Amino acid sequence: MSFRALVEEIAKRARLAGNHLSELPSDAKDAALRCAADRLEEASKSILAANSQDLGTGRSTRAPDAMLDRLTLSGDRIGAMAQGLRKIAALPDPVGEITGMWTRPNGLRVGRMRIPLGVILVIYESRPNVTADVAGLCLKSGNATILRGGSEAIHSNTAIAELFRTSARECGVPEDAIQLVHETDREIVDLLLDREDEIDLVIPRGGEALIRRVAERSRIPVIKHYKGVCHVYLDRDADPKMAGDITINSKCQRVSVCNSAESLLVHESLADTLLPSLLAELHGLGVEIRGCPQTLKRCPDAILASEDDWSQEYLAKILSVRVVESMDQAIDHIRIYGSNHTETIVTENLRRAHAFLRRVHSSCVMVNASTRFADGYQLGLGAEVGISTTKMHWYGPMGAEGLTTQKFIVFGDGTLIE
Amino acid sequence: MSFRALVEEIAKRARLAGNHLSELPSDAKDAALRCAADRLEEASKSILAANSQDLGTGRSTRAPDAMLDRLTLSGDRIGAMAQGLRKIAALPDPVGEITGMWTRPNGLRVGRMRIPLGVILVIYESRPNVTADVAGLCLKSGNATILRGGSEAIHSNTAIAELFRTSARECGVPEDAIQLVHETDREIVDLLLDREDEIDLVIPRGGEALIRRVAERSRIPVIKHYKGVCHVYLDRDADPKMAGDITINSKCQRVSVCNSAESLLVHESLADTLLPSLLAELHGLGVEIRGCPQTLKRCPDAILASEDDWSQEYLAKILSVRVVESMDQAIDHIRIYGSNHTETIVTENLRRAHAFLRRVHSSCVMVNASTRFADGYQLGLGAEVGISTTKMHWYGPMGAEGLTTQKFIVFGDGTLIE
Repeated sequence: MSFRALVEEIAKRARLAGNHLSELPSDAKDAALRCAADRLEEASKSILAANSQDLGTGRSTRAPDAMLDRLTLSGDRIGAMAQGLRKIAALPDPVGEITGMWTRPNGLRVGRMRIPLGVILVIYESRPNVTADVAGLCLKSGNATILRGGSEAIHSNTAIAELFRTSARECGVPEDAIQLVHETDREIVDLLLDREDEIDLVIPRGGEALIRRVAERSRIPVIKHYKGVCHVYLDRDADPKMAGDITINSKCQRVSVCNSAESLLVHESLADTLLPSLLAELHGLGVEIRGCPQTLKRCPDAILASEDDWSQEYLAKILSVRVVESMDQAIDHIRIYGSNHTETIVTENLRRAHAFLRRVHSSCVMVNASTRFADGYQLGLGAEVGISTTKMHWYGPMGAEGLTTQKFIVFGDGTLIE
Repeated sequence: MSFRALVEEIAKRARLAGNHLSELPSDAKDAALRCAADRLEEASKSILAANSQDLGTGRSTRAPDAMLDRLTLSGDRIGAMAQGLRKIAALPDPVGEITGMWTRPNGLRVGRMRIPLGVILVIYESRPNVTADVAGLCLKSGNATILRGGSEAIHSNTAIAELFRTSARECGVPEDAIQLVHETDREIVDLLLDREDEIDLVIPRGGEALIRRVAERSRIPVIKHYKGVCHVYLDRDADPKMAGDITINSKCQRVSVCNSAESLLVHESLADTLLPSLLAELHGLGVEIRGCPQTLKRCPDAILASEDDWSQEYLAKILSVRVVESMDQAIDHIRIYGSNHTETIVTENLRRAHAFLRRVHSSCVMVNASTRFADGYQLGLGAEVGISTTKMHWYGPMGAEGLTTQKFIVFGDGTLIE
């Protein structure tokens, strides 16, 4: 079968499965999710065997350590995937939810009801747990999903996707609601991105290059998340201990992820009190400081930040630091150099906390919390299919609700336009 | 100034105005809307003079009557525009609305808050009242707008847009929140569609060709509304009088608009009772019937529908008619041939009314109401910037709320990730 014919078949099967899935009651979908969770745990040995095969190939092709780390499964990681699915099953079903209803002067009752988007294509790299998260959230929200994982994880992904298909079939859910693309040729992706009649949304998960390539190429709407340049702003009324804790947790708890902090903005009133000891502590933790001239005065180990530093997503033990004269200046800085991902203010001042929340238009805006909470699981969405840092359709970590849209529903009583 | 430089300046001014506008209190925006409404009425003579100029050009270039009709303003139409703006001013401000708030097990409070999208580009044809509706809804929702009307309405649009800019300035709103592109060269549109860094959303309003051209060309997300093939389904438990009234109102009240009915589906149990008299009545009103073989048996004047007829948007006194065996068959027909715009069921049966509402995934699904209600004003949105018949970002008639997105807001108390 040619790639074109293969892709057409996948897309058409997905559309049919999506139509069927959109009408299923919550019970059937939740049963399939719990069944998949049980099967993941039961089949943990064979999943680990498939994963070993991928790791073997990865080692023999000298894949980078970071990639091998993301690729590696363990009994614990499989258990966490299963628990995630049970949490998704326990969430309320977004489909059918009526989000508002009002009555017009002529008696017409108008409301809005959530429905699935239809078919979701997810393109991702390395991490096999994405397979379970995405399949779970798409199933919950009544969407068929086409999974296109990286070739480096093909055996792991196949094992997980097959469990989902079996679980679906057993619970009266069409198995084509979950399709993994086994063919790893790149041309397949381009062909999928042309199927605008069958696929409603594309979610690329991976580096900026992958996302730009998909966005340029796709005829289908794309959820974009280019990078995470997250800021911590220490207000003049910050609690000093909290300021240090949140800065260090945001920067250091896991440096390789998009919701870790890359830039620290400090009100000038703290420059001589809090800043020197905080920078010393960060330096002691192995964090390289790239600072503005004011920062350099307070930190002998800092190096001067270049203009480029302010918009860098380091994903490493590096932090850019700038002393600002006011919250206004901090907000302007975030607007210019930020990536619309996540920013947090540390303050005890109510008015400035609320002004920061209102005025900063990043997808997650926080008060007195670590930027590391910008994650679908941590925010209570069960998991995430991805993060959107552009404002279209969804903004921020995207769970089951983000995979729905709302139609208008109207009740009349023979109501006519005059 | 080159077109490129002109477009860059327009886009950058819009972005700056949008940033400012997103922080304005509701009072200022509503005052500017009411001021613009007053000025429209006060300046009605000079607007009509500008409109005469456009109509003169239109007549001398032999523009079609339908276009001249859409282009024509009158004292009444200007009064209706002003009233529309006052209604928009009286609506609640969507910006800053917190749509939900929940507490996580670790005490973190998480919510979602509505914010403007930023900058909206609207590309439209002929009707000058679109200028007021769009400028009003964008202002209300805190978005800067770039208006690109047709060259045939340039004088009318300029007069209206200038009133908005003056009203904005007087009420402390940046005048660049409303910019009309005066240059009518087509290249301008292409250049605007490249400004993805400054423009967040494009709404083309016009024929299918315009929308396809914009969607193909744009790097910016586009709200798409290709056509309206709206269906009336007469269930076997339809009230006969209501069935006739809704069919005739949906088809005939105004045939040239996207929410008029193009296709009638009739349950077979009504084929010998209701259908013959209804088709005779439609025929008497000058409606051409294109029917399935079952329909032809009941209507001597009907002609046989071709396969193409089922997906035709006639925008004329033509109706395709099909007898179906069941509601399932009607829903399948809508899924295959419909355009995701609007469908209505006429029935007294509660279970089928709800099943139709739940199972049909068009952007407006109605029970016992005319399809002609699928309109932002009629549904209570004040007006509409456009209609979306694809599920991304918004679905159906789009008012101020559709011009917003939601960011996550998070309150911690020094909360850290473990």
